[in-house]
Amino acid sequence: MRPLLVLASCQMFGGELDDAINPAIGIELFHNFTLLHDDIMDEAPLRRGKETVYKKWDSNVAILAGDTMFALANKYMLRTRPQAVSPVMELFNQTAIEVCEGQQYDMDYEKQPNVSIPEYIKMIRLKTAVLLAASLKTGAIIAGAETADCNHIYDFGINIGLAFQIKDDLLDVYGELEKFGKVSGGDILAGKKTYLYLKTLEAAGPQSEDFRTLYSAHNIAGVEKVMKVKGIFNQLNIEQHTRQLIDDYYQKAIHDLSCISIPLEAMESLTEYTAGLMEREN
Amino acid sequence: MRPLLVLASCQMFGGELDDAINPAIGIELFHNFTLLHDDIMDEAPLRRGKETVYKKWDSNVAILAGDTMFALANKYMLRTRPQAVSPVMELFNQTAIEVCEGQQYDMDYEKQPNVSIPEYIKMIRLKTAVLLAASLKTGAIIAGAETADCNHIYDFGINIGLAFQIKDDLLDVYGELEKFGKVSGGDILAGKKTYLYLKTLEAAGPQSEDFRTLYSAHNIAGVEKVMKVKGIFNQLNIEQHTRQLIDDYYQKAIHDLSCISIPLEAMESLTEYTAGLMEREN
Repeated sequence: MRPLLVLASCQMFGGELDDAINPAIGIELFHNFTLLHDDIMDEAPLRRGKETVYKKWDSNVAILAGDTMFALANKYMLRTRPQAVSPVMELFNQTAIEVCEGQQYDMDYEKQPNVSIPEYIKMIRLKTAVLLAASLKTGAIIAGAETADCNHIYDFGINIGLAFQIKDDLLDVYGELEKFGKVSGGDILAGKKTYLYLKTLEAAGPQSEDFRTLYSAHNIAGVEKVMKVKGIFNQLNIEQHTRQLIDDYYQKAIHDLSCISIPLEAMESLTEYTAGLMEREN
Repeated sequence: MRPLLVLASCQMFGGELDDAINPAIGIELFHNFTLLHDDIMDEAPLRRGKETVYKKWDSNVAILAGDTMFALANKYMLRTRPQAVSPVMELFNQTAIEVCEGQQYDMDYEKQPNVSIPEYIKMIRLKTAVLLAASLKTGAIIAGAETADCNHIYDFGINIGLAFQIKDDLLDVYGELEKFGKVSGGDILAGKKTYLYLKTLEAAGPQSEDFRTLYSAHNIAGVEKVMKVKGIFNQLNIEQHTRQLIDDYYQKAIHDLSCISIPLEAMESLTEYTAGLMEREN
């Protein structure tokens, strides 16, 4: 997804794809480096259905392999149009700092009893949205787009990224699988502080403490817990609230695109791709 | 030491110190990032007399803080003369890959029963020497030195780095502290595979197995173990062998300098500084 955004943005602004292909690889390498280190921190046993690097070897190997991938990613980012090197590298490493900051907030929030919705939005902006935004802006810089356009496509990426991450939270509970009578709710079982959870705490008023106790309970069967939590989500219209927020960010993203100084037709493949992301129901 | 090498090299090749100051900071930041991650892997409790980051907080904080420092280091490296940006960044990230490779070899060798002297030299070249070499070459690139000179100063850095690291091994056992009747031998106590240890295995012939057993023994008092190991070093002239090897690398380094196309006087501060490093006896 991220390399595609680099290439789509470069093409849309009239750049040469040849100048964007190595930075696209660099961004994908960077993303995979963050997964390698995140898996150590989250003690995740599986990634894409396979054992994680730290499980298969050990955490030292995973730390060093990650560091090496980050250095290699930087080398790929360099291979572009000479005038684009400095701004691309500056954006890339600033984004890396922000992604690390997001991961630290994510870990902090898991331990912290109270997390506000603005805090949660800040965390997913840093952990997820900035890299999508930076992918798009990298393509734009390589194509030689004007500064204002580079910033509009970055803002578009932020808003799409937020919508995308909140949709992820939503689909864990209200995905298409539900239509076939299946219950997923992996986030509920893991006690993850998702947008749906935080919105429920906000909307539940005096019942919020009972909900908090249920959400962190380990003494009831998984299916029962998911059904009960979902029952409360339903009572409080959490699905509708969440879909509304996703749509708000999506509309902001569309507005960002409309500010760009190129014809809408030239942006078609990007708008189609992101509309597809927004429509997914599983 | 590393930032100083960047600046000294830049000045020696007639560059502007203002163009080198941020990359000098970047290299120091990078070096400290590697220490942060190394301390996790080596489970080191102390660094420069203070608790290590992973001990004071936890390894997740140390992983993320390190990642952030590496990204920040890349940002500092960018702040130089525009034409120098690409070669400086390429060298920097290639060096980072090599330093990680060196750390992996170091960890592998600690577990591996047999390590050859060439393997050990390769490891310290990657773990220590390449960063000193890259510091010097970075200064040269920033100053706009010719490619051949950039390569000679790099080779000088490799040879000085090897001499420096082997001297470190030597001084652990034959440092000035010895003159006051003190016994240091921290490497011996830790069972570290230093150059002195590997050279002894090579020179001990049929007794090498006994020496290996002694070196890894935990059932004798520390002072006794150090005295016994040192006794064997003395029998086999290990101090002389080691001083000879250090001098060989130092002579190679001096030869590398003599190939550089600038007058020897212009290199005085660098040669004085490195001669000082070579003369240290503690």
